[in-house]
Amino acid sequence: MRLAVLVAALSLPLAAQAREGMWVPQQLPEIASPLREAGLELPPEQLADLTGDPMGAVVALGFCTASFVSPEGLVATNHHCAYGAIQLNSTPERNLMENGFIAADRSEELSAGPSARVYVMDGISEVTDRIEAAAGELVGEERLKAIEAEQKRLVAACEAEPGYRCTVYSFFGGQTYRLFRQLEIRDVRLVYAPPRSVGNYGGEVDNWMWPRHTGDFAFYRAYVGPDGKPAAHSPDNVPYRPKRHLRLATAPLQAGDFVMVAGYPGRTNRYALYDEFQDVATWQYPVVGQYLRELVAIVEAAGAQDEEIEVKYASTIRGWQNAMKNWAGQLEGFERIGAAAAKQAEEQAVLEWLRRQGREGRAGLAAHAALVRLAAEARATRQRDLVLGQIAGTGLLGNLRQLHRLAMESAKPDAERLPGYQDRDRPQIEAGVRQLERRYDPRMEKQLLAYWLKHYLALPADQRVPALDAWLGGNDEAAIARALDATYGGTSLAGTEARLALMQSDLAAFEASEDPLLKLAVSLAPALLEMERRSRARTGEDNRHRPVYLAAVQAYKRSRGQAIYPDANLSLRITYGNVAGYSPRDGVAYTEFTHLDGLAAKATGEEPFDAPANQLALIAKMDPAQKAAIPVNFLSDLDITGGNSGSPVLNGRGELVGLAFDGNWESVSSNWVFDPAMTRMIAVDHRYMLWVMREVFPAPHLLEEMGADQ
Amino acid sequence: MRLAVLVAALSLPLAAQAREGMWVPQQLPEIASPLREAGLELPPEQLADLTGDPMGAVVALGFCTASFVSPEGLVATNHHCAYGAIQLNSTPERNLMENGFIAADRSEELSAGPSARVYVMDGISEVTDRIEAAAGELVGEERLKAIEAEQKRLVAACEAEPGYRCTVYSFFGGQTYRLFRQLEIRDVRLVYAPPRSVGNYGGEVDNWMWPRHTGDFAFYRAYVGPDGKPAAHSPDNVPYRPKRHLRLATAPLQAGDFVMVAGYPGRTNRYALYDEFQDVATWQYPVVGQYLRELVAIVEAAGAQDEEIEVKYASTIRGWQNAMKNWAGQLEGFERIGAAAAKQAEEQAVLEWLRRQGREGRAGLAAHAALVRLAAEARATRQRDLVLGQIAGTGLLGNLRQLHRLAMESAKPDAERLPGYQDRDRPQIEAGVRQLERRYDPRMEKQLLAYWLKHYLALPADQRVPALDAWLGGNDEAAIARALDATYGGTSLAGTEARLALMQSDLAAFEASEDPLLKLAVSLAPALLEMERRSRARTGEDNRHRPVYLAAVQAYKRSRGQAIYPDANLSLRITYGNVAGYSPRDGVAYTEFTHLDGLAAKATGEEPFDAPANQLALIAKMDPAQKAAIPVNFLSDLDITGGNSGSPVLNGRGELVGLAFDGNWESVSSNWVFDPAMTRMIAVDHRYMLWVMREVFPAPHLLEEMGADQ
Repeated sequence: MRLAVLVAALSLPLAAQAREGMWVPQQLPEIASPLREAGLELPPEQLADLTGDPMGAVVALGFCTASFVSPEGLVATNHHCAYGAIQLNSTPERNLMENGFIAADRSEELSAGPSARVYVMDGISEVTDRIEAAAGELVGEERLKAIEAEQKRLVAACEAEPGYRCTVYSFFGGQTYRLFRQLEIRDVRLVYAPPRSVGNYGGEVDNWMWPRHTGDFAFYRAYVGPDGKPAAHSPDNVPYRPKRHLRLATAPLQAGDFVMVAGYPGRTNRYALYDEFQDVATWQYPVVGQYLRELVAIVEAAGAQDEEIEVKYASTIRGWQNAMKNWAGQLEGFERIGAAAAKQAEEQAVLEWLRRQGREGRAGLAAHAALVRLAAEARATRQRDLVLGQIAGTGLLGNLRQLHRLAMESAKPDAERLPGYQDRDRPQIEAGVRQLERRYDPRMEKQLLAYWLKHYLALPADQRVPALDAWLGGNDEAAIARALDATYGGTSLAGTEARLALMQSDLAAFEASEDPLLKLAVSLAPALLEMERRSRARTGEDNRHRPVYLAAVQAYKRSRGQAIYPDANLSLRITYGNVAGYSPRDGVAYTEFTHLDGLAAKATGEEPFDAPANQLALIAKMDPAQKAAIPVNFLSDLDITGGNSGSPVLNGRGELVGLAFDGNWESVSSNWVFDPAMTRMIAVDHRYMLWVMREVFPAPHLLEEMGADQ
Repeated sequence: MRLAVLVAALSLPLAAQAREGMWVPQQLPEIASPLREAGLELPPEQLADLTGDPMGAVVALGFCTASFVSPEGLVATNHHCAYGAIQLNSTPERNLMENGFIAADRSEELSAGPSARVYVMDGISEVTDRIEAAAGELVGEERLKAIEAEQKRLVAACEAEPGYRCTVYSFFGGQTYRLFRQLEIRDVRLVYAPPRSVGNYGGEVDNWMWPRHTGDFAFYRAYVGPDGKPAAHSPDNVPYRPKRHLRLATAPLQAGDFVMVAGYPGRTNRYALYDEFQDVATWQYPVVGQYLRELVAIVEAAGAQDEEIEVKYASTIRGWQNAMKNWAGQLEGFERIGAAAAKQAEEQAVLEWLRRQGREGRAGLAAHAALVRLAAEARATRQRDLVLGQIAGTGLLGNLRQLHRLAMESAKPDAERLPGYQDRDRPQIEAGVRQLERRYDPRMEKQLLAYWLKHYLALPADQRVPALDAWLGGNDEAAIARALDATYGGTSLAGTEARLALMQSDLAAFEASEDPLLKLAVSLAPALLEMERRSRARTGEDNRHRPVYLAAVQAYKRSRGQAIYPDANLSLRITYGNVAGYSPRDGVAYTEFTHLDGLAAKATGEEPFDAPANQLALIAKMDPAQKAAIPVNFLSDLDITGGNSGSPVLNGRGELVGLAFDGNWESVSSNWVFDPAMTRMIAVDHRYMLWVMREVFPAPHLLEEMGADQ
């Protein structure tokens, strides 16, 4: 049925369009009636209760979304969201990435690492007045500082009760501010992860692609202290008992059915200026994308020679590959939908409309002009800022640079410190210090730095950094190699304990250090601070002008009856629509579900298509009706982006039908310019998850805990 | 609607299967009721009148099918069927292949060459009794000779009235024989061919592929003498006025609609033995396929250096590429559907069933055993037979070898000569002699022969040919080069006139010739005759056993209620079904029609996706409704194969809706093992043909002649 509608849409361009809109919870009254029309069976107002059922079961992990699926704190998310924790617990001898993991009982559950978090929604409050009052008429970095200071005050007050994490989110470039209060669970443990050949079946080849057959799911458990309050990892901790958890769907999900996702999408740029769009479309994606390609080749070559390097840099390389493919897809999408021309035309239409408003339109026009100037300023030093940022952020050097900065900030009163360097941030910083030893190899780090230093040498003379030039002592690759060998050969700060000690050192101790790598880190600080200062000044100015310009854009859109929702900003959003395929090109339709036969047909025995032998044997024995009952992945016309990974997909009754884990290839450009015809979400079907846990990589105790039929 | 059915079919494997069956006209009563059920609106018995409307409009071209589409002898067929004629009339200065051709009036219509034919059905008669009586109990080559002699008698009697071509077709390996009488029109002229960028849009990249956007159509006109009877090309000739011609459909063809094709499919092997299947699946397609790949690379490299070579060998290379891709697709299909195992299991089931029949089954079992032995004999020398056959068939050497053979056969009474060397065959042979100069370049021919001679040198010693060894005078590549240079440097037979003269020479003149290339041709004759003798003996034996075995297979199939129709054999067949897409793999559906937007989306400006600029400009200006009215290509579940190219596709009212021009990639293996789920026909939609002729490459006079709305 649904597909028939889609096919008809090829000649009738307005039908079966994806549901653009990452709605903030405050907009629920506004979308209540479209939600009902789309198929929501729950009363829409029930969704507005963010700590009620089902919304209270949705949690954030930081860069992913997840959900409670049992009364004992079992958390479902994507395999790729738990990948860092799986990697952290992997060794060449006990490779959980490759072989998967099942904790037979609670005692076997493994710490997901000191930085792993589960954030449970407590409440949201409006704080726009407070921020606006603080910012007043200030400009540049002063404005930013005032806003940050007020945010810190709000956060500090909000976090007065221990165990909570509070965050101020800005919407529409600073037009609205909201304070989110979340319970911060700090003892997160890995409970279940399928083998790579299930959890990442299809690997990079299938990433962003349809048809898809990836079992991208894993389970954590949230633990709290014996008093029920968040606590650091400890054997004394007990499973957290969430107020809400999701129930599994019982009716089979079908093509055309209503589905919705609640989650924490990271970043969209749908309200960006044309010039900002062009910066990514003509520089970041093509040029920086090529740098990433070259870096991946360097790390892969080293990893092929050395399994330790391969394991340590697996997560890094996976991030780069994901970005590269995403960027390539975005460029393809920009081309396909004529994004640059559309973006430019839309902006011109807004400006034209503003001009027609006369006096009323002037503020918007002036704000636009100011934002255009800011974009030009950023563009002038983007290559230098990239290269310097990459050097300063690489591995051990990056860690030392961060510790030096921590010492600098720690010299100030807590409230005046840069966000990320306050006392509340110390545990995260410490976690980073500890994790580095699992993700650092000096041979690899020198190669990565050498790569960026070569780009550094190519910068115009007036963009060079005297301290770095002095350290290099030359202008060629030989100088780079000499400097790196001497520095990394001489440092004694690779060990975790030495760096933990630095967390307590004062600035004087840093400046007096004779360690060659720390000296390099310290010497880079002035240039980095200057870069940061310029960037922060632009951010402050952006905050002054963007809300004015976006108010004008909103007015323009309202005048045309268009939907308005803010760009994604890592805060909670709701998106809804239907299970729906699409036509990637003339003569071809992508259908809503994939099936076990398709999974088996892809199997080659070679990674990434090395489905487990027992899985293939099971499929070979099943009859068509059994196989039809177990879809693997499905498509829907929901509007998600990175950060939504792991989000529970709910049916019209608010029951769990799957986990979102990807967008399709054609959707990735929608972060900048939404393409309603081709934007689709890819989810792993809960029926496949349950089948894997029942038959392929069995965990009957977890099925029982979730209340699944055995 | 239709697609919805297809998608449902993914879980219900028995729905929406392709319509297996290339029905002979004699079977029309048997399929009358399924035809009506599928949507035929004409009375089925109307189709049984092969000279009536619409069947009388369907004609054969030899290796393609075509149809009359006007009362003045206008013939529609595929661009790729007319490609030889287009090439023949092309020069580097006036490249019709590249730029297309429109005859502004009758005087501009170009001869399609002396070998071009249009065969118009006159009648079919049963001649099985005559052949069986002649064959009697004879065995081996004697049996074959007796059958051939009787066929010649039948043909000679049938062709007594000039202007007719008669052919005896064998069905079910010699179980039934039918004599076809066709009017043989020998003056065929090229009227219209779109440019390559329309007629072969997508080229080799899209060949066998969906989605497809190829305008694979062209027009001939049939001419006869002023007396209305067939005649060789002459300026005095006049357009032939066919008794029947097809009308264009007026109602738009839609998904699910009934369609049928009448045409001349070349060869299927659905009743082949498992051993015969294995010969192609494990040797011909993979091993000989690799030889073709290497030959294509050799010719392409030479063509890139020299435009004359490129033009002369374009048709040759296109044939190889088509075969290579077809074979690769067949191998992929065999793998996908497990053809080898299915073939073996089916054969075992037949044998098992025969064993259960006791005495009744013995003849079938014995015939099967005899056929297995014949297959083993052929296999033993297949590599030698291939290499020798290729050497003896290459270009100028092949032409001289054929002329030598003609002299040998001409020494016998006409009725005793080998088929293909009788007096009636002389015009075709002469046409080949004349055409060679357009398709021969000595530099290229030496390279091609050198390739096969290297393979010759690798044969086991007991399979070598003394005459060829003597000519080579060595066992290495240097010897090959020396022999070829001397032979081709010394020959004076490259010119057409010299070879036309040889058509009149007697055997003694051939044997006395001192021309080095003719000496080589003559010296190869004994080995080739021996090879031919062995092959003919096997054919005679095959004819003795296969009808017996296939009668057993038919009985087995009847016992299971299965449809029975003979393998394709270049004789007239009817296939019917519906416009229908398919699912090439899990999660993907191929939809029934392609559209102009898809054509434009493929355009890169580079061959083979260099759609004409005016075509793209027209599409860019059209509104969605206009574009929706002009599908480019469409899929249906009809059962066709090579030889069906150019076949008219008729709707339920017998009106023209398109021209068949290809099968999909997944269907090519159906020549051996029919795959109902994925076998589809690809046709060019008549609405696209008319639009091209109206707007893109205009020929308003032809549209008027066909009665198309202007």
